[in-house]
Amino acid sequence: MTAGDTLSIVFAALADPTRRAILSRLAQGPATVSEVAEPFPLSAPAISQHLKVLERAGLITRTVRAQWRTLSMHAEPLDEAAAWVERQRREWNLRLDSLETHLDTMKTKPNIDP
Amino acid sequence: MTAGDTLSIVFAALADPTRRAILSRLAQGPATVSEVAEPFPLSAPAISQHLKVLERAGLITRTVRAQWRTLSMHAEPLDEAAAWVERQRREWNLRLDSLETHLDTMKTKPNIDP
Repeated sequence: MTAGDTLSIVFAALADPTRRAILSRLAQGPATVSEVAEPFPLSAPAISQHLKVLERAGLITRTVRAQWRTLSMHAEPLDEAAAWVERQRREWNLRLDSLETHLDTMKTKPNIDP
Repeated sequence: MTAGDTLSIVFAALADPTRRAILSRLAQGPATVSEVAEPFPLSAPAISQHLKVLERAGLITRTVRAQWRTLSMHAEPLDEAAAWVERQRREWNLRLDSLETHLDTMKTKPNIDP
């Protein structure tokens, strides 16, 4: 993995159910660390580790205002991940379509080969 | 990670540039292992390891016909991954929309609070 390979870092960040649940929570609006941690039977350091992974992937940011630390989601890395997945699905569907057209042609055209 | 957590396994499989490149190749149609390995300066065991990860995620299958081993892509796990990412982006955009509406209301409505 190269340093510039942000897509790998984003997919790796998404490869954990706790981190995906944290993101789902933050997609609905900013929250404090304790609000985000509340549903999970995890230690504070474990939650902190998950937040670091999400932060490194650019999926969340922390802002500190007075004593309040707020976590917010950032959608841009998700857009990139979605674009990559969409590209593969499109290629795949194009290929299925052309296979189907090919099979239809074979069905309607009489075989003139010996 | 639980055994049934297929989404984590799929995202982890996508978290590597070589594996994504292999999938992109197979999205265009089935290929042999050597065709898939050809662009990469990697050993056969390294390629084989990447293929195992993709196979475990259900993203590719191997078929053996005579002496030919063919690799094919499977789109279903990508569909699930895309659906998850789309859900978060939708939630996020819904929230941005309602924030915008809220700000517009504040701009047009005179403040009647003391």
